[in-house]
Amino acid sequence: MSQGKQKRVVIVGGGFAGLAAAKTLGGAREPGLEVVVVDRRNHHLFQPLLYQVAMAGLSPADIAAPIRGLLSEHRNTRVIQGEVQAVDAQARRLRGDFGELEYDYLVLAAGAMHAYFGNEAWEPYAPGLKTLEQATEIRRRVLTAFEEAEAHPEDSRERKRLLTFVIVGGGPTGVELAGAIAEMSRTTLARDFRNIDPKLTRVLLVEGGPRLLAGFAEPLASRATRDLEALGVQVWTGSMVSGVDARGVTLGAEKIEAATVLWAAGVRAAEFESDVALERDRQNRVHVGADLSVPGHPEIFVAGDLAHAEGPDGKPYPGQAPVAMQQGRYVARAILRELAGEDRGRFEFVDKGQMATIGRSRAIVEVGKLRFGGITAWWTWLLVHIYYLTGFRNRVLVLIQWAWSYLTFNRGARLIVSKSWRSYPEAGATPAPEELPPVREAAQPSKSTRAGCVGA
Amino acid sequence: MSQGKQKRVVIVGGGFAGLAAAKTLGGAREPGLEVVVVDRRNHHLFQPLLYQVAMAGLSPADIAAPIRGLLSEHRNTRVIQGEVQAVDAQARRLRGDFGELEYDYLVLAAGAMHAYFGNEAWEPYAPGLKTLEQATEIRRRVLTAFEEAEAHPEDSRERKRLLTFVIVGGGPTGVELAGAIAEMSRTTLARDFRNIDPKLTRVLLVEGGPRLLAGFAEPLASRATRDLEALGVQVWTGSMVSGVDARGVTLGAEKIEAATVLWAAGVRAAEFESDVALERDRQNRVHVGADLSVPGHPEIFVAGDLAHAEGPDGKPYPGQAPVAMQQGRYVARAILRELAGEDRGRFEFVDKGQMATIGRSRAIVEVGKLRFGGITAWWTWLLVHIYYLTGFRNRVLVLIQWAWSYLTFNRGARLIVSKSWRSYPEAGATPAPEELPPVREAAQPSKSTRAGCVGA
Repeated sequence: MSQGKQKRVVIVGGGFAGLAAAKTLGGAREPGLEVVVVDRRNHHLFQPLLYQVAMAGLSPADIAAPIRGLLSEHRNTRVIQGEVQAVDAQARRLRGDFGELEYDYLVLAAGAMHAYFGNEAWEPYAPGLKTLEQATEIRRRVLTAFEEAEAHPEDSRERKRLLTFVIVGGGPTGVELAGAIAEMSRTTLARDFRNIDPKLTRVLLVEGGPRLLAGFAEPLASRATRDLEALGVQVWTGSMVSGVDARGVTLGAEKIEAATVLWAAGVRAAEFESDVALERDRQNRVHVGADLSVPGHPEIFVAGDLAHAEGPDGKPYPGQAPVAMQQGRYVARAILRELAGEDRGRFEFVDKGQMATIGRSRAIVEVGKLRFGGITAWWTWLLVHIYYLTGFRNRVLVLIQWAWSYLTFNRGARLIVSKSWRSYPEAGATPAPEELPPVREAAQPSKSTRAGCVGA
Repeated sequence: MSQGKQKRVVIVGGGFAGLAAAKTLGGAREPGLEVVVVDRRNHHLFQPLLYQVAMAGLSPADIAAPIRGLLSEHRNTRVIQGEVQAVDAQARRLRGDFGELEYDYLVLAAGAMHAYFGNEAWEPYAPGLKTLEQATEIRRRVLTAFEEAEAHPEDSRERKRLLTFVIVGGGPTGVELAGAIAEMSRTTLARDFRNIDPKLTRVLLVEGGPRLLAGFAEPLASRATRDLEALGVQVWTGSMVSGVDARGVTLGAEKIEAATVLWAAGVRAAEFESDVALERDRQNRVHVGADLSVPGHPEIFVAGDLAHAEGPDGKPYPGQAPVAMQQGRYVARAILRELAGEDRGRFEFVDKGQMATIGRSRAIVEVGKLRFGGITAWWTWLLVHIYYLTGFRNRVLVLIQWAWSYLTFNRGARLIVSKSWRSYPEAGATPAPEELPPVREAAQPSKSTRAGCVGA
């Protein structure tokens, strides 16, 4: 590269950080600047609402859009669907299944996946929630559990197991999943079954730490806990998961029989080869400086969930969409400033607060010292999410439909779609949990295993 | 069963026929009548628009709804998600993965799947379009082909192969798929790529018979062929497919390299064990009498795509939604009449015509002697489908959204969702066609193989 004034910025990842960087760079219309976005998915995902897809409130297309389409107006921007395998910082080159790609600036925004911290064998029995595929799989499991309970009313122990849902991890995702399952079973599903009473569904939210929502102020977290309990969720804090298998979960000496176990207990930043020794933290995030660049490599930036960037208080910024978006925009501006001969400046996070929702019409909101819950918080949550969702989809009708189905709790997306598309030999056979591959002998939980805790 | 006056009707299949029967029986509020619907899916599918899901115009939830929810107002109706394995007509009992189920009346409406007539080994390379899973898979393949062509611009032969789409079967589904791919590549996708020109996409519609749309009058079929060709589709009639593998299709001596092959060439009615010798036709449909019951077993009815019922002209009714709906309603009324001590009557089909659509703003409509095409036909097609779609979903907003996205051709559902939901070891890895299992030695086409022909 670097022929004449032509500069190429390669962005790895089309999530909130990568997309914000690409839009800012594309929108600047800087002559001689080429932008390439690489993502192994073809779509950007509005992750804050992914639990709604898992809980059949929304369709995948409601919260996802093709990256290519989102960036099509920027003629200097190319999108490649492919997987990056290695960074060759010496040669300023990426290697991946798409071949090789040279860069002048590299923006690493590959995000994070849910993680089991040494207990990967649990995954078949306790899927996480980071992708559309996982959301669809969770939806399939939850709805299938009700169907199986309806079909086998005679076996009361099995029925109880089928109607027990365990969510591991008391962060925002765990709270939202638990609230949504509890509410769905008491509203939408209540009329639809004849042999079972969906209201008897047992929803268990397991958290290893002393309380839910460790990122929120204590009074707000308490309120959320009370709201969850009002919906019928059993909240077990200080409970460490020591085993997960096809029959359920083990919490210390106690074994909970549950057909559905969902994992919302921690994430791990993306992995890739690199000839630069990247310093990683416990969650595998890459340590970066005040300008979000890798020490010694000012041309390599890291943004979003992959970045360990410290705020003024010395703590790393949390893995949240607002942080990722602001970091993506900052990186793009830093590059533009540098190209204009100016100083990069440093990343400064503008904290607009945080929120979590607990079922319909209940939420908590924390903006600095301002803290509130209940219906006002829920409306705030709804409006903020609608605002950001339309920001990237820009389709008024989808927004109306979404608001409608959410308000009426219609759960129009209540489809069980199986994993197999073949018609031979077994069309649409949905394997029962028992048919899943057997668990390998569970490894002793390592020191770093903090199942049930949201990553610090 | 048969204790006192209690009568149980078991309906196998929640498609158009089964759902119409269940709604009619449930709505009659006949005391002492119990209705049980068994389906291996939890959802009813509006199949006439399934190609729209495959072509990213609609989301699965737009054209599917939980059977349980559709029937929840009928308190005498139960829904079981399960697979029927055998009919024990002697004991009036069904066996399935849900256990055993006794009946007084049995309505078999299990439908049909796409079929390869002895060439099942072709399926991995040429998926059919009968389920939501298959539609999602087709969408994934079509969109991935464009992505791969964009990522590998240097290899012109491979690029040509990736941008070649072969649709086998010139019935309504084949015509709709071919028209939609051609149109999508020339409109929605045209702006989104940098290395390829989606307008150069080659779409080939292969039909074994002498012309497309054998079920329509010849002038209409000609018009549809011209409309397709205007969209850039190459229509090859009289062409028999003799092989399909990972590289493409073989038509006699000619080998067409194509990354995406779609199968719309014939269906085969559902299979199950039975202690009654059911007479089956070449498409595996069950021969039934004028009252749609199995000869010798007046308590067993067959309706929809599974039934071979002859019309006044001696020909079997085609496998279409209107036939299935009318047969389902007739069966329900026949049972109600018999319970009331009346005569069953016989099934009479009221032909309201047929239609097919070719891309946006072109269609053909045939109602008796009345035949027309073009924009008027397309609006007719649109209004009829909206009418029936809302009939089962009853949600005005979905309808608006659907009309909107169809009219604007926005293709909001342009998501590639992979088959794997696991994050370990290969998160979201989408196997290339080459990685699919190798084709077994293709069997000699048997007498009944009419690849490329729509089933008579």
